[in-house]
Amino acid sequence: MRDGSGTASRGPRGRLITFEGGEGAGKSTQLSLLAKALKKRGVDVVETREPGGSPGAEAIRALLLDPENKGWPAMTEALLHFAARCDHMSRVVEPALASGKWVLCDRFTDSTMAYQGVAQGLGSSVIEQLSALTLKGRKPDLTIVLDLDPEIGLKRISERGDAPTRYDLMDIAFHRRLREAFLMIVRSDPGRCVVVDATYSEDFVAEMVSGAVTSRLEMDLAS
Amino acid sequence: MRDGSGTASRGPRGRLITFEGGEGAGKSTQLSLLAKALKKRGVDVVETREPGGSPGAEAIRALLLDPENKGWPAMTEALLHFAARCDHMSRVVEPALASGKWVLCDRFTDSTMAYQGVAQGLGSSVIEQLSALTLKGRKPDLTIVLDLDPEIGLKRISERGDAPTRYDLMDIAFHRRLREAFLMIVRSDPGRCVVVDATYSEDFVAEMVSGAVTSRLEMDLAS
Repeated sequence: MRDGSGTASRGPRGRLITFEGGEGAGKSTQLSLLAKALKKRGVDVVETREPGGSPGAEAIRALLLDPENKGWPAMTEALLHFAARCDHMSRVVEPALASGKWVLCDRFTDSTMAYQGVAQGLGSSVIEQLSALTLKGRKPDLTIVLDLDPEIGLKRISERGDAPTRYDLMDIAFHRRLREAFLMIVRSDPGRCVVVDATYSEDFVAEMVSGAVTSRLEMDLAS
Repeated sequence: MRDGSGTASRGPRGRLITFEGGEGAGKSTQLSLLAKALKKRGVDVVETREPGGSPGAEAIRALLLDPENKGWPAMTEALLHFAARCDHMSRVVEPALASGKWVLCDRFTDSTMAYQGVAQGLGSSVIEQLSALTLKGRKPDLTIVLDLDPEIGLKRISERGDAPTRYDLMDIAFHRRLREAFLMIVRSDPGRCVVVDATYSEDFVAEMVSGAVTSRLEMDLAS
C-alpha cells in the first residue's frame, strides 16, 4: 500500500471511497456491504454520508431538506452543500484519513455536480471552481458510480415504502439528466471513477464493487 | 439619474446602498435615518439586512447564529454567508432594484471579506473568487463604511444593554483587524466606498451619510 505524503510518521494515510448514483441505485446498501468486507480484512472503516456526517453539516442537511425552504436558487443549494462538505471534511474525513482509516461516504462532490451543476443547470464549471476553491483539490481515492435506469430506481424506492424525498418527486427527465451527468463524470475522470451496473442483485453488485476496490486500491477482498 | 441597462422599459433601475463597519458603529441606526430622508424625497426604499433579508436567508442566519454550531471552519461560514446572499439577492434585492426601488442593506459582501476573509484569516482572494462566482460581479452602487475605534464600539454595545453576539465576545485584536479590513476595502475601491467617522453624534454622522449619497448618487438630500 502507498503511504500518504506527509503522514508517514503516523503510518499509512487512509482511503476515501465515495458512492454515487441516482435515487434507488443502492448506494447505502453497497456502502454497508463494502464496510463489512473491509472490516473482515482488518481495515478500520468510517461510514459516513453527505450532506451531513458531522453535527454542523447535519444541521445544514436539515435546512436543505426542510420543506419550508424549498425553491432555493440552485447556487444557494450548491453553496450549502459545499459549506456542509467543508465542515464534514475538516472534522470527520480528514482526521480519519490522517489516522489511517478508510472513509466510505454516501455521496460527495460528484452529487453536487450531477444535481446542481447539471440536472439543475448551474453549470459544471461553477461546481469545478467551487470544488477547487473550497476543497483545495481533495478528491476521493475511488468513486463507485452505481448506474441504473431511473425508472427502475424510482420503482425500487416506492416498493420499499420510503417517504419520497424532494428529488424522488422530480420528473423522469430530471432523473435521466442525473444519470447522464454521473456517466459523464466517469468518462471525465476514469482513473478515479468506476461505473457498476446496479441492475443486478445486491450480492452480484457487491462482488463488482469489491472487484473495483481490489483492482484500484490494491486491497484483496476476495473471500 | 442614470438608467439601469436592460431595464429602461420599466423605468430607471434602483440603487443598492450598503452599510458596513464593526460592532457598535451605528449601521442600523444610520440605515434607518437615510431611509427616512430618502422617503421624504419620494424614493421607494427597501430596508434589509444580511445575513438574512429573505425567508431562506433568515433560516441560514439562524444556523450561523445558533450557539450549538459555534466553531464552524471559516470556509463553511463564508459559504453560508454567500448561500444566504444569493437567496436574498434573487428574491428581494434584484426584484426591488429592477422595479426602481432603492435598497438599503445592513452589511453585504464587504462584511464577509472583513470577518471571514481578513479577521478569521481565510484570505481576501477566496472571498473575491466566491463573490465573482456567485454574484456575477454585482456590487453595491454605494457603500458607507462607518469607522470607529473598536473600544468605543464595544463600549456602546455594552451600554445599550444588547445581548452580546458571538463576534462582540471576540478579543480586541480581532476587532482591530476588522477595522483595518474595512479601511483596506475602502482604499481598494474608492469609487464605490465612502468612509464616515462614526465617533460623532448620530445627527452629524447622518449628515455626512446624506452628503455622501448626494455627491455619489446625484440625489439631493439637503433639507
